[in-house]
Amino acid sequence: MKEVKVALLGAGTVGSAVVRLLQANAEEFNLRAGARLRVIGIAVRNLEAPRDPAIDRALLTTDAHAIIAQADIVIELMGGIEPAREYILAAFAAGASVVTGNKALLAEHGPELYDAAARAGVDLYYEAAVGGAVPVVYGLRESLAGDRVTHILGIVNGTTNYILDEMTTNGESFDAAVKKAQELGYAEADPSADVDGYDAAAKCAILASLAFHTRVQLSDVHTHGIRDITPEMIASAGRGGYVVKLVASAKRRANGIELYVGPTLIPAQHPLATVHGAYNAIVVEGEAADRLMFYGPGAGGNPTATAVLSDLVAAAHHRVHGGLAPRELAYGELPILPPAQARSRFQLSMDVADHVGVLSEVTGTFARHNVSISGVTQESPTADHLCRLTVTTHEALQADVEATIADLSAAAGPATVSTASFVRVEVA
Amino acid sequence: MKEVKVALLGAGTVGSAVVRLLQANAEEFNLRAGARLRVIGIAVRNLEAPRDPAIDRALLTTDAHAIIAQADIVIELMGGIEPAREYILAAFAAGASVVTGNKALLAEHGPELYDAAARAGVDLYYEAAVGGAVPVVYGLRESLAGDRVTHILGIVNGTTNYILDEMTTNGESFDAAVKKAQELGYAEADPSADVDGYDAAAKCAILASLAFHTRVQLSDVHTHGIRDITPEMIASAGRGGYVVKLVASAKRRANGIELYVGPTLIPAQHPLATVHGAYNAIVVEGEAADRLMFYGPGAGGNPTATAVLSDLVAAAHHRVHGGLAPRELAYGELPILPPAQARSRFQLSMDVADHVGVLSEVTGTFARHNVSISGVTQESPTADHLCRLTVTTHEALQADVEATIADLSAAAGPATVSTASFVRVEVA
Repeated sequence: MKEVKVALLGAGTVGSAVVRLLQANAEEFNLRAGARLRVIGIAVRNLEAPRDPAIDRALLTTDAHAIIAQADIVIELMGGIEPAREYILAAFAAGASVVTGNKALLAEHGPELYDAAARAGVDLYYEAAVGGAVPVVYGLRESLAGDRVTHILGIVNGTTNYILDEMTTNGESFDAAVKKAQELGYAEADPSADVDGYDAAAKCAILASLAFHTRVQLSDVHTHGIRDITPEMIASAGRGGYVVKLVASAKRRANGIELYVGPTLIPAQHPLATVHGAYNAIVVEGEAADRLMFYGPGAGGNPTATAVLSDLVAAAHHRVHGGLAPRELAYGELPILPPAQARSRFQLSMDVADHVGVLSEVTGTFARHNVSISGVTQESPTADHLCRLTVTTHEALQADVEATIADLSAAAGPATVSTASFVRVEVA
Repeated sequence: MKEVKVALLGAGTVGSAVVRLLQANAEEFNLRAGARLRVIGIAVRNLEAPRDPAIDRALLTTDAHAIIAQADIVIELMGGIEPAREYILAAFAAGASVVTGNKALLAEHGPELYDAAARAGVDLYYEAAVGGAVPVVYGLRESLAGDRVTHILGIVNGTTNYILDEMTTNGESFDAAVKKAQELGYAEADPSADVDGYDAAAKCAILASLAFHTRVQLSDVHTHGIRDITPEMIASAGRGGYVVKLVASAKRRANGIELYVGPTLIPAQHPLATVHGAYNAIVVEGEAADRLMFYGPGAGGNPTATAVLSDLVAAAHHRVHGGLAPRELAYGELPILPPAQARSRFQLSMDVADHVGVLSEVTGTFARHNVSISGVTQESPTADHLCRLTVTTHEALQADVEATIADLSAAAGPATVSTASFVRVEVA
């Protein structure tokens, strides 16, 4: 049986799990790959840091380039942009295939890496970059090669899903839910990459690139986090039959692609509505395939390691038996639409003065901006004579919704609206 | 660009959709496959039958062997055992790869076909055989190559899911729901392959073979249909927090594999509970990956065609660029456990006489057979002084549950039990 030499860069939670699972199931992996998988070295920053007992200290090195030069396959699990980018390019230059879980790197430098892999005639696999154990990269790259994808809608950040789920189930405040997530290890000390939507935006860029065969980068994704979500908004959404989820959305339109990350109202009967805790789920709609969903744990050492290992098996199989994974094709090259041009259903919440005729004036403003209303609810006035108005629209242009809010907020007289906000609404 | 010659066997709903989508998106398919895909002929039984306008009548032939002999890839969508089996073996003998959606054939003759493909050094793809557009074959064959699967639990028959969903939502009888399914084209005039569980059993055998690297055949799967499910049973399950689903289950135990198709109580918070209508969903649990779910349309021309086409693209890519799909490995060769040895949670329903002390006698019988009870509900007696007793167990051996029922039914005196039945219960 041929041997495939594997260099591992990074020995954190996922890297340790990769080594542990490779050792525990060595024979099965060798049979599946059709080759003997041998870890020749593990590059780390600090040789003395405390480590998982599965890590053989004799394999540790601080010289990544030395093990990359001897490897058939390099597994990059360091994260961050540099030196991960430099190491991956070095691996390609040395003729090695690469398996990575580095979403930030792919979202910023994906095209450079895809091109470098293609020029070197090697594989670049990255299942672990999106959705942990959920095989959505595989699904888009290979399973849906037989269809044209029209929409991707995913819960791709387990931390924010956990936080929103806590706020929904227990009525907790955003701050209290973040604290709980931090205690459980779901959220970092500085939770901004998660709660401000950047992690989800990186995954959105990767998924959209794959689905639409178009090069999409992080900066193309209009991103809104969940810091301003309150238990009251969630409760109000619940009364209307919706749950609030942070979603990544990428939609094919006649004139280009809409990309969006932000809190969204999901109808209770939508398959994403029942995705709880730190789970991830990605709904993929295709012209012919209708609606598919991929669901599973979005993070964690062992689950994410299974994604890395399935990539490793595929890459090793190619090293020994020939073949290459499908290339990242950019033949689509669809334009990226600016957020104002996005079309969606929206729900607007606003406080209006409790006067006869206010509703008519407000809805008239919607009509002047071509925003068609599907429903309005008005709550009983509070002590300060303000009514909470919730307006749900049919599909409308975001620019028109923003103009409506600007007009309503600027209006003189009794129909002046304060604290208006809007979120997107998905259809079941 | 190289040309890949494709012979299609069968021009029914799925075959026509394959041709239509290939024509509509020809350029995209060619780019993805890295080859020009050309349909060289379509074998049908009757040249004169009315057909989808996408089918070019000049391509039709009744001589399947003639087009198989010239093909690089043969797509078999005729269904049935013979002559499909003969044609596929002829394709392998001629050096062609095969894409099939024939679950019955794979469940009965899978090992023969896998071996023949391996000997010929060609691909055998069959994504469309399970779950329509849902890429669960891909998931098990490739994505989960990095894990050891412990349990597969799937809704793999859309017809029965539609029927049970109708009975649940509208309180309809089994017969009325079947009639509605027939009117909508979900169920055939003779619905037995669906409602008696055979279709699901074939898919169970295919999934278990893949998941456990063990050769499982249709006859290995203990199968129970849904003909005896009543709206009352569904309503009672609902009050207990369960929905009734026909599931295919394949579970790895220390001493072998448990295989089962039958109506099962699914907790409302389980991801399968919200799979409605004719949708399919397969939950795959792995030692490291935790719980994954694949969800989508389980039937229909276009969705199933996308599965065929993704297989076609993969097979064509291999023809042009080298490589082969992973082999069906049978290194596991785990024993198949007989149904009596299966362990599960169960729910038993029975009518008992309304006497003091009956509950104690009944639960005593459970205890004597080592069946541990997790909950009992007793409904108010009816006019004929019978009480409906619902007993839910912890995990127990099916043989012990059957012995308990036999004892209870045979008991003399006030604790005689009539019309006892049991179903399995899944955990959330």
